[in-house]
Amino acid sequence: MQRTLIVDALNAEKTQDNIVLCGWVRTRRDLGGFSFVEINDGSSLANMQCVIAHNSEAYTAFGTANTGAALCVTGALAPSPGKGQKWEMQVQSIAVFGLADPETFPLQKKRHSDEFLRGIAHLRARTNKYGAAFRIRSEAAHAVHVFFHQRRFALVHTPVLTGSDCEGAGEMFRATALSPDEESAGKDFFNRRCHLTVSGQLEAESLAMGLGRVYSFGPTFRAEKSNTPRHAAEFWMIEPEIAFADIEDIMELGESLVHHVIDHALTRCEADVRLFDNFVDKGLMDRLRGMIAKSFARASYAEAVAILESSGRDFIFPVVCGMDLQMEHERYLTEEHFHRPVIVYDYPKKIKAFYMRANDDNETVAAMDILAPRIGELVGGSQREERLDKLAARLRELSRNPDDYWWYLDLRRFGSAPHAGFGLGFERLLMLLTGIANIRDVIAFPRTPGSLKF
Amino acid sequence: MQRTLIVDALNAEKTQDNIVLCGWVRTRRDLGGFSFVEINDGSSLANMQCVIAHNSEAYTAFGTANTGAALCVTGALAPSPGKGQKWEMQVQSIAVFGLADPETFPLQKKRHSDEFLRGIAHLRARTNKYGAAFRIRSEAAHAVHVFFHQRRFALVHTPVLTGSDCEGAGEMFRATALSPDEESAGKDFFNRRCHLTVSGQLEAESLAMGLGRVYSFGPTFRAEKSNTPRHAAEFWMIEPEIAFADIEDIMELGESLVHHVIDHALTRCEADVRLFDNFVDKGLMDRLRGMIAKSFARASYAEAVAILESSGRDFIFPVVCGMDLQMEHERYLTEEHFHRPVIVYDYPKKIKAFYMRANDDNETVAAMDILAPRIGELVGGSQREERLDKLAARLRELSRNPDDYWWYLDLRRFGSAPHAGFGLGFERLLMLLTGIANIRDVIAFPRTPGSLKF
Repeated sequence: MQRTLIVDALNAEKTQDNIVLCGWVRTRRDLGGFSFVEINDGSSLANMQCVIAHNSEAYTAFGTANTGAALCVTGALAPSPGKGQKWEMQVQSIAVFGLADPETFPLQKKRHSDEFLRGIAHLRARTNKYGAAFRIRSEAAHAVHVFFHQRRFALVHTPVLTGSDCEGAGEMFRATALSPDEESAGKDFFNRRCHLTVSGQLEAESLAMGLGRVYSFGPTFRAEKSNTPRHAAEFWMIEPEIAFADIEDIMELGESLVHHVIDHALTRCEADVRLFDNFVDKGLMDRLRGMIAKSFARASYAEAVAILESSGRDFIFPVVCGMDLQMEHERYLTEEHFHRPVIVYDYPKKIKAFYMRANDDNETVAAMDILAPRIGELVGGSQREERLDKLAARLRELSRNPDDYWWYLDLRRFGSAPHAGFGLGFERLLMLLTGIANIRDVIAFPRTPGSLKF
Repeated sequence: MQRTLIVDALNAEKTQDNIVLCGWVRTRRDLGGFSFVEINDGSSLANMQCVIAHNSEAYTAFGTANTGAALCVTGALAPSPGKGQKWEMQVQSIAVFGLADPETFPLQKKRHSDEFLRGIAHLRARTNKYGAAFRIRSEAAHAVHVFFHQRRFALVHTPVLTGSDCEGAGEMFRATALSPDEESAGKDFFNRRCHLTVSGQLEAESLAMGLGRVYSFGPTFRAEKSNTPRHAAEFWMIEPEIAFADIEDIMELGESLVHHVIDHALTRCEADVRLFDNFVDKGLMDRLRGMIAKSFARASYAEAVAILESSGRDFIFPVVCGMDLQMEHERYLTEEHFHRPVIVYDYPKKIKAFYMRANDDNETVAAMDILAPRIGELVGGSQREERLDKLAARLRELSRNPDDYWWYLDLRRFGSAPHAGFGLGFERLLMLLTGIANIRDVIAFPRTPGSLKF
């Protein structure tokens, strides 16, 4: 079917006869011999107003179609006398594909709670809010790909099914081809324990040590039973890894990436972002513009702790040097002290992963996190320990068997080089872009404890 | 570190002093007072030749560095007297990051078997062949994103963890947060059976019925214990879904997508594709050029069967109307009859999935597959059954409980519309682009039965 997208029709340069639009009815008003029907096809937040004369054949075909009905209209694009829209559609003919019974269709005109809409996740892309959220999600993902492609990073697909446990922390899902009954007796698909990845970093390192600059962008998994607005069992991560790079390089890269995606979303999805500014998070657009107007703040972990200590605040988790930063600390630093995102670097080695490069003080590692207002940790990265002896010693210190890391150590055994990378939780970035406070609302079909309805 | 990528240095417009390159030594020759060292940083197939005078400090720093060593060289880009290269590097200083002991480093200059290299998958990105394969993989993925973005498709992320079984066929992996011992007693993460997705189609349909045009590009899983060169347990699928579209639309879309990706790879990765033409699959480039020079052939299933019946061939699987096409049939059609890819459509409903739209003959469905020479099925798609009564009846005919498909049926209950989509196995496309015959060699860390070493 040759049809025009509503976004293109709305941006047309001139009037046009005989165009075909398809979409779903958002509202219908009947007034003075005409029906005014707003239709939306998902290509933009804005609807096209279609005007149907009551004495026309089109009106007969239109019949009882109401909010939610799918239809196809043919007509002429004409200047709209209404305000807020340049064009409207003077309808010549209509084909109704599918009705939506107003008695049972759950998406009537009124506003619905986020919680209610989560229960009908299969329909919520038809609402203004979730349509906007998912368009922003799509454009943000595209911006990520363009950003790395321009910088000559190779996109790599690291495996979901894994025999290794990268972070060595957190609960993992296990994958099996056996049913629960067969598990004790049967021989499983891989003849060994298989988990769902929590990070593609180790594999990305291997690929960076040949391809130079790589990034992965794929789903990762955590089986933590934490029912918070910030955690999902399945979420997408962006993980660049660069050979011949140090911590400074990835601080710059992370900041540039966040800037780039915000800028792209503001440019390309202005109307969608404005919806969130208007109805979800007042001041969102100004805050986003502010974030790209200047550089992120930077503070070493020691400086950050000193700032928190001298804040005079009564934090729930007391501030002690050596502690991991909690959400309340991250928010204080970004929202009240720096008033913008901050990159914190050189963390104590005790609270960070084994693969991070030891600094010369032997107390801290070349780790860096980007903290953002409201979101907390947006990016977590480090320069990797490229010295074979130090890495093996650190594994032993943590009572891990270096043999389990044979291939990862091989990367240090043969042609080792400084390298660094980070992980950016894509949903966290979307929460930043939209002001949406619950991670369940930036994912089409969110997975959280007890929740697998779809 | 401010450095230049080798691909950029090789394409420089003019000589340049004081540039910094980093990379791994591919070969070293010592001759007439000079060392000629080829280094590669993964940014291109081509190496940079670095010339080190034996009476220089750089030579002292270079020391015994040999194939596989990682280093950083500073020097001047100068016209090369050697043939096949425009520039070479006259080295002023060198820093060696990591050596590679020639006694133990497995990637010496000689050619290695694919099988040997699969055993050292963590190092194979450092070879010419796999470097090229993974660069092509990256560019092909990028081409896919650009293709859909230009056509205003929203990129959607459909879940890996799923409570539903889309195709209703094939072995699935099960995901659990419990250890094998706990399984009988414990309460699992989702309180219900969870599987790894075999396709994001049903969820993509839900999103297309709001966003209009969507595509997913993510990992999918099959727990089939078939150890063939064409099957992996984890592979990436591209799945567009379009509202207000019919089978004709997706035939065009699929053909355009394949054309676009081939064209992009030939343009952007010419040297990499030529490597495969030279060493893996003679005639590859001409075959690819041929594929985009003209339209794909088209044949209904009935026509395809008639062609096979009159071929005079003695197939292993006899040709009978109603059968599923086997690899040998697909290869005959593409390689010997049409001499190009062919789109076969209108398959018998008995051999196709429940969600495909019934044709008026009530015997066939509006399904279409794109078959490619050597590869067989590259794309599989259909117009979806949008009529609630027909879809529910088909489910019952197949002894399935429509209640299990409640949300999928809702898409037909409220504002239903014609829609269509397909799945393209990304690894199959890469096999087409490279001539690589084993799917294990287009995936960085392939997952097949018994194989989870990394």
